[in-house]
Amino acid sequence: MVPRYSRPAMTAIWSPETRFRIWFEIEAHATDALADLGVVPKSAAEALWRWWATNPAIDVDAIDAIEAVTKHDVIAFLTWVAEQVGDEARFMHQGMTSSDVLDTCLAVQLARASDLLLADLDALLDVLRRRAFEHKLTPTIGRSHGIHAEPTTFGLKLAQAYAEFARCRDRLVHARADIATCAISGAVGTFANIDPRVEEHVAAKLGLSVEPVSTQVIPRDRHAMFFATLGVVASSIERLATEVRHLQRTEVLEAEEYFSPGQKGSSAMPHKRNPVLTENLTGLARMVRGYVTPALENVALWHERDISHSSVERYIGPDATITLDFALARLTGVMDKLVIYPERMQANLDRMGGLVHSQRVLLALTQAGVSREDAYRLVQRNAMQVWQSDGKLSLLELLQADQEVTAALSRDQIAERFDLGYHFAQVDTIFERVFGRP
Amino acid sequence: MVPRYSRPAMTAIWSPETRFRIWFEIEAHATDALADLGVVPKSAAEALWRWWATNPAIDVDAIDAIEAVTKHDVIAFLTWVAEQVGDEARFMHQGMTSSDVLDTCLAVQLARASDLLLADLDALLDVLRRRAFEHKLTPTIGRSHGIHAEPTTFGLKLAQAYAEFARCRDRLVHARADIATCAISGAVGTFANIDPRVEEHVAAKLGLSVEPVSTQVIPRDRHAMFFATLGVVASSIERLATEVRHLQRTEVLEAEEYFSPGQKGSSAMPHKRNPVLTENLTGLARMVRGYVTPALENVALWHERDISHSSVERYIGPDATITLDFALARLTGVMDKLVIYPERMQANLDRMGGLVHSQRVLLALTQAGVSREDAYRLVQRNAMQVWQSDGKLSLLELLQADQEVTAALSRDQIAERFDLGYHFAQVDTIFERVFGRP
Amino acid sequence: MVPRYSRPAMTAIWSPETRFRIWFEIEAHATDALADLGVVPKSAAEALWRWWATNPAIDVDAIDAIEAVTKHDVIAFLTWVAEQVGDEARFMHQGMTSSDVLDTCLAVQLARASDLLLADLDALLDVLRRRAFEHKLTPTIGRSHGIHAEPTTFGLKLAQAYAEFARCRDRLVHARADIATCAISGAVGTFANIDPRVEEHVAAKLGLSVEPVSTQVIPRDRHAMFFATLGVVASSIERLATEVRHLQRTEVLEAEEYFSPGQKGSSAMPHKRNPVLTENLTGLARMVRGYVTPALENVALWHERDISHSSVERYIGPDATITLDFALARLTGVMDKLVIYPERMQANLDRMGGLVHSQRVLLALTQAGVSREDAYRLVQRNAMQVWQSDGKLSLLELLQADQEVTAALSRDQIAERFDLGYHFAQVDTIFERVFGRP
Amino acid sequence: MVPRYSRPAMTAIWSPETRFRIWFEIEAHATDALADLGVVPKSAAEALWRWWATNPAIDVDAIDAIEAVTKHDVIAFLTWVAEQVGDEARFMHQGMTSSDVLDTCLAVQLARASDLLLADLDALLDVLRRRAFEHKLTPTIGRSHGIHAEPTTFGLKLAQAYAEFARCRDRLVHARADIATCAISGAVGTFANIDPRVEEHVAAKLGLSVEPVSTQVIPRDRHAMFFATLGVVASSIERLATEVRHLQRTEVLEAEEYFSPGQKGSSAMPHKRNPVLTENLTGLARMVRGYVTPALENVALWHERDISHSSVERYIGPDATITLDFALARLTGVMDKLVIYPERMQANLDRMGGLVHSQRVLLALTQAGVSREDAYRLVQRNAMQVWQSDGKLSLLELLQADQEVTAALSRDQIAERFDLGYHFAQVDTIFERVFGRP
Repeated sequence: MVPRYSRPAMTAIWSPETRFRIWFEIEAHATDALADLGVVPKSAAEALWRWWATNPAIDVDAIDAIEAVTKHDVIAFLTWVAEQVGDEARFMHQGMTSSDVLDTCLAVQLARASDLLLADLDALLDVLRRRAFEHKLTPTIGRSHGIHAEPTTFGLKLAQAYAEFARCRDRLVHARADIATCAISGAVGTFANIDPRVEEHVAAKLGLSVEPVSTQVIPRDRHAMFFATLGVVASSIERLATEVRHLQRTEVLEAEEYFSPGQKGSSAMPHKRNPVLTENLTGLARMVRGYVTPALENVALWHERDISHSSVERYIGPDATITLDFALARLTGVMDKLVIYPERMQANLDRMGGLVHSQRVLLALTQAGVSREDAYRLVQRNAMQVWQSDGKLSLLELLQADQEVTAALSRDQIAERFDLGYHFAQVDTIFERVFGRP
Repeated sequence: MVPRYSRPAMTAIWSPETRFRIWFEIEAHATDALADLGVVPKSAAEALWRWWATNPAIDVDAIDAIEAVTKHDVIAFLTWVAEQVGDEARFMHQGMTSSDVLDTCLAVQLARASDLLLADLDALLDVLRRRAFEHKLTPTIGRSHGIHAEPTTFGLKLAQAYAEFARCRDRLVHARADIATCAISGAVGTFANIDPRVEEHVAAKLGLSVEPVSTQVIPRDRHAMFFATLGVVASSIERLATEVRHLQRTEVLEAEEYFSPGQKGSSAMPHKRNPVLTENLTGLARMVRGYVTPALENVALWHERDISHSSVERYIGPDATITLDFALARLTGVMDKLVIYPERMQANLDRMGGLVHSQRVLLALTQAGVSREDAYRLVQRNAMQVWQSDGKLSLLELLQADQEVTAALSRDQIAERFDLGYHFAQVDTIFERVFGRP
Repeated sequence: MVPRYSRPAMTAIWSPETRFRIWFEIEAHATDALADLGVVPKSAAEALWRWWATNPAIDVDAIDAIEAVTKHDVIAFLTWVAEQVGDEARFMHQGMTSSDVLDTCLAVQLARASDLLLADLDALLDVLRRRAFEHKLTPTIGRSHGIHAEPTTFGLKLAQAYAEFARCRDRLVHARADIATCAISGAVGTFANIDPRVEEHVAAKLGLSVEPVSTQVIPRDRHAMFFATLGVVASSIERLATEVRHLQRTEVLEAEEYFSPGQKGSSAMPHKRNPVLTENLTGLARMVRGYVTPALENVALWHERDISHSSVERYIGPDATITLDFALARLTGVMDKLVIYPERMQANLDRMGGLVHSQRVLLALTQAGVSREDAYRLVQRNAMQVWQSDGKLSLLELLQADQEVTAALSRDQIAERFDLGYHFAQVDTIFERVFGRP
Repeated sequence: MVPRYSRPAMTAIWSPETRFRIWFEIEAHATDALADLGVVPKSAAEALWRWWATNPAIDVDAIDAIEAVTKHDVIAFLTWVAEQVGDEARFMHQGMTSSDVLDTCLAVQLARASDLLLADLDALLDVLRRRAFEHKLTPTIGRSHGIHAEPTTFGLKLAQAYAEFARCRDRLVHARADIATCAISGAVGTFANIDPRVEEHVAAKLGLSVEPVSTQVIPRDRHAMFFATLGVVASSIERLATEVRHLQRTEVLEAEEYFSPGQKGSSAMPHKRNPVLTENLTGLARMVRGYVTPALENVALWHERDISHSSVERYIGPDATITLDFALARLTGVMDKLVIYPERMQANLDRMGGLVHSQRVLLALTQAGVSREDAYRLVQRNAMQVWQSDGKLSLLELLQADQEVTAALSRDQIAERFDLGYHFAQVDTIFERVFGRP
């Protein structure tokens, strides 16, 4: 975890305190269920909750000190709780194994992390929707291969991003369901020493579903799917960040990250305003993606379990969720405050001498009966002249002066093909598809 | 694509012939829609389908020869079709861009690939269910960290695998939906030169959903999610393969891959029967996982698109689906014919002198009022003796001779804890959770 | 392997014929050594080489047919050779195990592949050197964060690329040494049934070093390092390809991939010239990088070996080397024919109204006694005006009109800071460092 | 960075204090060189070193507070130093850019980290050598595919590990050289505002080589190679860890991680001794490998640089080196204290009824004139009986009773093939290759 790329709410989920609090809740709910089943005295569960009601501080150092001796974290925790609660605490953890606590706790942590990430996505989607509508009809050049293609609107670019993150949201909902399961099934998952109803009770109390079959541990294909999904979200972040970086290039400059008055772009070059936030997001995306493979490698544990997944999860549990939370928030800020230059977009659109309308002319020619090959040749020979003039010649004028072209289309018919509005006729349709009917 | 790790049906999806056939269907359906909209003559669409009805062979070499000149695959294809169909073919592809054809074709290919993979998973699930019930109550030792833990049944191991692959199936259904979209939206996705109803028509005809907003290309987060999902399935394959490899170890030998009479295990050591199929699956899983990262890196295309994703997809489209199809079929074969040795399972279960029952004794002691720490100490000191004897001493006998233990539990009470059946009391519950009520 | 991204020489290394030829040479050389040691009759080795001298065709289908029965590739091959050579062939493979043949063969294949890749790098380095000197003093704007920074020369950009690929060449030399080892050490690497001198003889004959200690297989950390190195080379390819893609953007257009007369850029937009080769290289780099992780996962084989690495290597052996060979050759072609536009470079350099000289003014101010903070403020306030004018205002004129600036520097002193040549004073130094003294 | 998987010396390299100290040294050495060149007053450099000689505490919080305003770390640092040193400090950083400081600092940090890792490897190599000689002739079964193959010695297993980590050491030496370069070349690497002799001076002072050509930043192919190398080392760690995990399996139990008296293996099962350290190492290896891909993705920065690499390096710089340092030390501890059970190795070796000698019999038969196919068939039919008896039948006895066998070999000749010592004849040779002549 890199502090500068973290936010408090997500970080808190991964603190020792939070972990121990969740452990306690799992143990106490389990003790409730055990008491209901008559396995342990009701007084045991009551003692636990009575202590808990005092809102006790968790003494992480004390627990760590015990662990230093026992070399076992759950035993250390139980020992510490027993010291606080007293004799009744010995009924805690009856028939359970450490993994029942650890894996169910991880499920709670990842579910909470998912909730924050879903809220992050909602905030991002709100910003994208607002700005998409703001620039619904702001003309800009569409580019394929970095080369001017045909006109589009800046709103459509943002609508695309909105749709992409809406898909990411759906995927995260699925991924959350995948990891939000509770397992309290004992040493090898047979419930030999614990009634499955304990698991059901704890699951219900913690808002988790029941793991149908576990093997001491919750199977790691669930977590693999979760982290793979975060990797996809990160890649979508990289895509939008890359778009902003391109738009801010000196020669393009159609949009800029907001640059606060006091901010210095470069220690050497005072004029520079660099897209450092979106470059940063590009790097963060690499990290979140980098956590996917270790998560996939965690699936093939040996037999009923080995503990190789645990160290991996101590890294990627916090790192992937904290980094993605930060990145989503940063991207939301960037898009919220993005300085957009419609005039520059128009200027870029115009600079290629009308080449962007070449396809419409091509179509018009074929519809006027010219063969596809001839139409292509006619348009290309004029387009190439414009291209080589770097937009100083006008495609419209050249075409209107090309007798082979005017043999098929009148000069007015040619001019009609140079209407920008034509390209935006379906913007409403697309917005309806993406954002629903207004 | 490695021929020896491929099967014909999946391979055929990725042949040039199949690709060109799908291209034709996209173009012809689009021409139908264009004709309905009055953009092109109905006769154009009819001419296409009339030719198609003759079930024409696709001359891949001829198309490749044209591409060698034009350096553009879709133009080459259209040119070739025009040569076959004649003059009416010039109305084909009106207002479309190459990516409309290429991306929608990829969607069809991946959807078909998904259908094969879903069928593969169904076959695997059938085998796992059958064998799980066959060995529902076959006792075997559960192992954590490779060390004997507590008894379980071989059927439970297989039930776990069933549940895991059932989850994989669900994930693949989602992943299929993610990539099965149709985009026919023109040069930058604005539908400037083509009516969105063309896209809707083609989507309906091909069983795809409509891409709400595209940018010449279908956004690659969809494909990233698809290949990431295949990576998760591959990791689950690796898990079950690893289990089989462990079970076949000389010292364990609780199960073996089927070994056909003529098969030679080693050129040097005639007696060897190696788990080569599951080792092979382990390697194949690495490959399918390896394709996840390139797919994730494909998401951040520049602006409305660049073509860097294309070369990646020429590899991983076929390689990931063909390899996974082969791997699933191979795993199904392995599990179908797996030679299982219940006697050996029982022998292994017995070899540790009853140590597997230690937790039950621990519980019994605490229930009899011994403190958790004392109970642990009492059991451990006897367990350690058994451990050091390599199972030659009997835990039951040692405990019955330990006066501190017998102070809390009678010798009969101790003996009761060594009942294997006790561990299997919940097998029915778990099977119901996994396979549903019988 | 994707045929369109392959070249014949590299592909041939991975053909079954080549593999069987290498196998034969290993076996025959080993038989020579065994004969010298008196283990087998000299006539056995002679028989093998006599047959080989007839330059026999390798009947791959026949060998495959035998393998279909034996399910063992080396035994199938030995059986086929025995059919050709006759009775003497039974002395072949004495004391050897299949892996002796397979792993040593892979070493030969990877060493040959390395030689082709080294030649590819040499060709690329030649082109980069030539073009670097050609544009040694062609002024162009240096960009950080995509934003204009300070002037550089196009030759320096290429010198940087040269230095990077020269490093890649060194790395590949090391990687080649890592994998070019010969192991003929028997079933678990103990030489129990074969004299180490056989290994030494075969190694010498094949130009390999001796594997100091093997375990039936050559340890896979060697191959991991090899494929990791290919991944680094691929990443350097991506870097240069990305540079070209940026330079070809419509708004930048400082260089372009060569576009042959007959080539069509887009089926819909006749004017487009897209950097498709370098986009393609970007994708190919993703693939070669994608093979690194499976190679790393191949290292941890079980005990003396398992065969999980084998399927991985059947993919990545050919795929990584063939793809990288193709990519290097393509990049060489792109750089060789790259169309470079020095006027456009100059125009871009000039377009920001002299902002690129801001740092020199900053330095001059501090050297004239202005505090760093004040100097920064003075330059920034004028730079910002130029920036906001999109280069229409001139930084030189603004500074010359700023009384706080002219209080420290005369108008002439300011003007001196706007000399482009100043920036290129060390180009010779850098070229000497990179290319050596002329 | 996960505290429990970190050690102080490596962690300290990545502390803010260390970073700022290295920054100061770079700036002060550069000021020395600038003073020698007459660019800045000698008094400026002297002022810096005079302050430094007071061994001043670095006030990280104060620097951070300045950065919160300037949003620029190097400017914040320079401002703070200026506050400490006074007016003379304004000559610091003349003609330099932030990256000159940042990248050279990273080079120093990675070089120091390399030195620690090299020392870690030396410690590991020492332990492996010692234990290899200790068990040079301890017989143990060699296993391929997890199946008993032929005898080897435990020392040979360790010699193999030694050779592998010796290779890793060599690779790390190369990787260190790759990243230990100094760049002080200004805004786009042209040395426009700074003399290359400054770079040379600082490089010499810091023990770095000179970066021949930089582009504001040191090219990231260097770092990619470095982290890829760490990924290979991690994979070798996983290999040895996996070996230990296998050896500790209940059924195998040929070696065990040292288990301290107070340690609890399981909260539920008191007898368990789990190979948790090597399982942990398996997970840590996944993490270090996971950092390779982000490092590779960092290579293709845009033009002269973008800053996307920076966030990645804030994670993987510390995380990869700290984790690998911890892992190497942990592995060294495991191997140092590994409890080895030679009797159990012998017992396992004997348990398969002599099957391990089958290849020797096979060879003897062919040498006695039996055809390879017949010899294979004869040995296999007896071997299979032994196999099916689970080692209760004796291969020697069966072969001696097989008349087709005894037709070729006398009973004594057969018995001679069952001599274990035969397998160890070349152990000295291999040890000499690995460890050199004694």
